[in-house]
Amino acid sequence: MKIDVLTLFPEMFEGVFGSSILKKAREKGSAEYNVVNFRDFADNKHQTVDDYPYGGGAGMVLKPQPIFDAVEHLSGKAVKKPRVILLCPQGEVFTQKKAEEFVKEDHLIFVCGHYEGYDERIREHVVTDEISIGDFVLTGGELGAMVMVDSIVRLLPGVLGNEDSPVLDSFSSGLLEHPHYTRPADFRGYKVPDVLISGNHSKIEEWREQESLRRTVTRRPDLLNDYSLSDRQKKWLKEWGYEIPVKR
Amino acid sequence: MKIDVLTLFPEMFEGVFGSSILKKAREKGSAEYNVVNFRDFADNKHQTVDDYPYGGGAGMVLKPQPIFDAVEHLSGKAVKKPRVILLCPQGEVFTQKKAEEFVKEDHLIFVCGHYEGYDERIREHVVTDEISIGDFVLTGGELGAMVMVDSIVRLLPGVLGNEDSPVLDSFSSGLLEHPHYTRPADFRGYKVPDVLISGNHSKIEEWREQESLRRTVTRRPDLLNDYSLSDRQKKWLKEWGYEIPVKR
Repeated sequence: MKIDVLTLFPEMFEGVFGSSILKKAREKGSAEYNVVNFRDFADNKHQTVDDYPYGGGAGMVLKPQPIFDAVEHLSGKAVKKPRVILLCPQGEVFTQKKAEEFVKEDHLIFVCGHYEGYDERIREHVVTDEISIGDFVLTGGELGAMVMVDSIVRLLPGVLGNEDSPVLDSFSSGLLEHPHYTRPADFRGYKVPDVLISGNHSKIEEWREQESLRRTVTRRPDLLNDYSLSDRQKKWLKEWGYEIPVKR
Repeated sequence: MKIDVLTLFPEMFEGVFGSSILKKAREKGSAEYNVVNFRDFADNKHQTVDDYPYGGGAGMVLKPQPIFDAVEHLSGKAVKKPRVILLCPQGEVFTQKKAEEFVKEDHLIFVCGHYEGYDERIREHVVTDEISIGDFVLTGGELGAMVMVDSIVRLLPGVLGNEDSPVLDSFSSGLLEHPHYTRPADFRGYKVPDVLISGNHSKIEEWREQESLRRTVTRRPDLLNDYSLSDRQKKWLKEWGYEIPVKR
């Protein structure tokens, strides 16, 4: 997968793209990162990339020209157009489902603004997807792009080895993860639940499934709307005094 | 504000903490970042920080000892305990409201796991807040910590100068931002709306308010549940054929 990032702060990406799974993915040839300062595409003498907003008001707005030209340069002559993703608070909220959609692409271009607004013509004529990673305000699109790249690249075939086993993959199963424990069995008087040391594997599986369900229903009951409960899971919920969510 | 980060990948943070607003905040003395490899706190000969899960299964689990000891060391003898934030998919979903809550603290400690699960005793006895930045799977907590630090530090008094005017602050007003335009008025045949060039400021304000409302109702109608609509906003929604959301 080819990944281009347009940003005014390319140095922000070095640590993240150069570590851990993203580094491994590059070394294996599964992903290729190209971080581009779109100021290099400004066609004016002072390499200005932003300007005052029409109609007045505070803040600056990114000009269309540098981003149009940069995206056209990076898109090249390929028949299959890349997805061009704008990180912005007005975008569709990013989820694991979106990551699973994007991982099927060959080429992604991320456009990161910083402080500034985007000229609306960029959204209308260059960008294919507007994405927000959540309902909070960030200084720029850079962190959103890193989050998306990490969540997408780790889904590429062969990127995660056994040693990177996705023990945290709550959203893949549809329920939140059950609690984990490791040695020592007694740490400062805080003990591991007996069942986990019992050696009884069917009891352990049942305990984990119950704790996973219990954690989901107490912390994130909204996730159950998209989850198919088994009969025994329904029974447990009733025993614990919860209503069975009606499928939307 | 004192910000400590516990991670096995400290090099991931350099680019982000050393750029833009986070760099400025450090230079102004508003924020202090301390990225700590918690492997340094492991009390075993091989500096092991993880171990196999009790009860079997794939993946490794972070041991309690290094994180207990690191947090105790960083908390020091202060009377006011720091907030200790665990980034994990099972946590409360991060929002701008949470950022506004955390910015009132003097000291935050972020705990970032990577691949591994956390021993449950860390959650129960060390951590004060479990936070997830969204419903997607990341390789570790590091990107979540960076996202939280950026959104919190930029709210510290004096950190954002006029030049960093928050034109993107959709979630602060409660509505999504209206479209922005800058020069040229005609770019490749794509034109700026006439009203913005009219010089009529009350018309411009009305257009912006309408576009902000229109964008919110079409893209993120859920945001209107927490927003107090003015009478004219209600009138516009009716004219456009939308129902007025009932306040929760």
